[in-house]
Amino acid sequence: MSAPHPHSGDPVFDLHVGGKMEVAATVPLVDRDDLSLAYTPGVARVCEAIAADPSLTQHYTWVPNTVAVVTDGTAVLGLGDIGPAAAMPVMEGKAVLFKQFGNVDGVPICLDTTDTEEIIETVARLAPSFGGINLEDISAPRCFEIEARLKDMLDIPVFHDDQHGTAVVALAALWNALTLTGRDVATTRVVISGAGAAGVAIAKILLEAGIKDIAVTDRKGVVHSGRSDLTPVKRELAEMTADKTGRTGTLADALDGADVYLGVSGGTVPEEDVARMASDAIIFAMANPIPEVHPDVAHRHARVVATGRSDFPNQINNVLAFPGIFRGAFDVHATAITEGMKLAAAQALADLVGDRLAEDYVIPSPFDPRVGPAVAAAVSDAARRDGVARR
Amino acid sequence: MSAPHPHSGDPVFDLHVGGKMEVAATVPLVDRDDLSLAYTPGVARVCEAIAADPSLTQHYTWVPNTVAVVTDGTAVLGLGDIGPAAAMPVMEGKAVLFKQFGNVDGVPICLDTTDTEEIIETVARLAPSFGGINLEDISAPRCFEIEARLKDMLDIPVFHDDQHGTAVVALAALWNALTLTGRDVATTRVVISGAGAAGVAIAKILLEAGIKDIAVTDRKGVVHSGRSDLTPVKRELAEMTADKTGRTGTLADALDGADVYLGVSGGTVPEEDVARMASDAIIFAMANPIPEVHPDVAHRHARVVATGRSDFPNQINNVLAFPGIFRGAFDVHATAITEGMKLAAAQALADLVGDRLAEDYVIPSPFDPRVGPAVAAAVSDAARRDGVARR
Repeated sequence: MSAPHPHSGDPVFDLHVGGKMEVAATVPLVDRDDLSLAYTPGVARVCEAIAADPSLTQHYTWVPNTVAVVTDGTAVLGLGDIGPAAAMPVMEGKAVLFKQFGNVDGVPICLDTTDTEEIIETVARLAPSFGGINLEDISAPRCFEIEARLKDMLDIPVFHDDQHGTAVVALAALWNALTLTGRDVATTRVVISGAGAAGVAIAKILLEAGIKDIAVTDRKGVVHSGRSDLTPVKRELAEMTADKTGRTGTLADALDGADVYLGVSGGTVPEEDVARMASDAIIFAMANPIPEVHPDVAHRHARVVATGRSDFPNQINNVLAFPGIFRGAFDVHATAITEGMKLAAAQALADLVGDRLAEDYVIPSPFDPRVGPAVAAAVSDAARRDGVARR
Repeated sequence: MSAPHPHSGDPVFDLHVGGKMEVAATVPLVDRDDLSLAYTPGVARVCEAIAADPSLTQHYTWVPNTVAVVTDGTAVLGLGDIGPAAAMPVMEGKAVLFKQFGNVDGVPICLDTTDTEEIIETVARLAPSFGGINLEDISAPRCFEIEARLKDMLDIPVFHDDQHGTAVVALAALWNALTLTGRDVATTRVVISGAGAAGVAIAKILLEAGIKDIAVTDRKGVVHSGRSDLTPVKRELAEMTADKTGRTGTLADALDGADVYLGVSGGTVPEEDVARMASDAIIFAMANPIPEVHPDVAHRHARVVATGRSDFPNQINNVLAFPGIFRGAFDVHATAITEGMKLAAAQALADLVGDRLAEDYVIPSPFDPRVGPAVAAAVSDAARRDGVARR
């Protein structure tokens, strides 16, 4: 680990030398007796037992606690399409977070293909090796089809964190912000900028949570069916959101009088636009590392402000969700992650804030030790309710 | 780990509860500062650096120390085609051995396909995630094409352990047995029973080591070109071995007067057949768990006897080879595992026996702590000589 390297002396690069993770044995292996239990000849009996009853995989392998962290490197952080090799540090980071916050064993899988069909068939062929699939940093709109098809094909949890992790945490924070500002979900007006993976998933979970007035914007303004440039995904999105209220126009038009702004766009929103929002407005500017609206600016026009950053209050961080969601799914050998499990995760996160609810505390800290266990327990319960638990 | 399970009380099954391995972080992750170095925002700079210079993968990720342990579950131990799920305990065991004996991070990959083309394309798509590929327990003859094609396609080590691991260790032990019995490689007559993955690889490495008279047998006797039932692989094998001496007939015919019997067949050889071998014969009956000739029987007719079992002297165990071979390849960022690297590994293993050479000590113990480092050093040197080292 002390070998010279090109960026020696830079703390980030120094930390990354040799990578961030390793494999470790959980059984002793110091003498012939150990070897004869963990490997031949003993292991043959375990193999035969699983061949006779595949459900024993859940008892006698590491599979039920593992998640493949799968990417094609096309939408990595805010960096875009940097390829599978360059995506690896993020996937290792994700695996380390899975372990630290959920005691889930994450295995980074960076694929040398960006073809939708090839990604689907490759992941399906890998499936016997893993207890779950966490899709990561795969660009829209391919990510939607890849996730949907794999969910149909496989009987293990498949979860695209850029969609659902973000959506769960945003919903948790929004529930608390609505409570704090005295709003009702049924009458709250929401604007989401960004119609990619996160924007679509946030819109969907907000609809499930009872929000009725949502406008999603992309670079050309509000996504509505009157536009001729919509992809199939955006057309479906339009029908679920702006079409129901008839909203059209620009982001600025949409923000006029809106109660909530949720930014997952990576762009910037001028101060004069957020100034037109309703009083006691709620602004979650989640783009990283540069929020769509700087918190200092947002605070001049909003009562509750959240970002994706750790150096401001109210961090909307996926790590609040994905480790506990997979932990909860794995604890009951769930065959899928349902909408009910995601909503339960958001509710558990929101509830942890409890009596301490305040403008600068609508979501717990990622380092709050209650988070992982609370999310996991809620998700396990929801899996049982939804009939996807195998124990 | 104390949860009830179907085979509770059986030491092998008790040991396997929860599997045999886990993922572990090698970096701290206890506060926001750690998170900002190991994950966002810090990690983005590492990703950008690798995107600009892919060779930095070797410095800043776990990739160069990882090996995918890939199987399709078709030839697991002596159990045959038990499928990918049932193969997992062996693959985990292999990964644990990689770590223990080579400090290599092994990741078990059990594939839900047995199609040659699908296996090849799947492994090729996974390649950016791993520093090497260890093929395992894939049945012949598919294993030959899968290995050859992947070696051509990829610039990382690809190694089919059932072939080359066994061959390396058998050659090491044989070299010492020949020395002990005063034989010269050029005049030694060898019979190999079993024309599958291990038999073919042993024949090839013995030829490279200078053995000239080899007969390989399958269930129908000596593999020679006069037979009409040969697969392409066996035809090539015949031309390299029995065709050169004109040998034909049964295994018993071949053993008549032979100096060396190497069994990798899983069958049994009658005592009257081994009784016809030359004086001071050498018998390596490597089938597991039941050797082709029991060591007690073999000793009545041979001077040096080896098996695959840990409860007899001279264990021909792949674990003597594969961890050190990959360690040595990884230490110099080798792009392949060459024939020279395999021969160097065998020589290093043989040399460790040194002055203690005796009938019951022609190969070191798997638990001899000198083994891994000695094999690794020899393999690194050979990689440099063969021009496949990248540092």
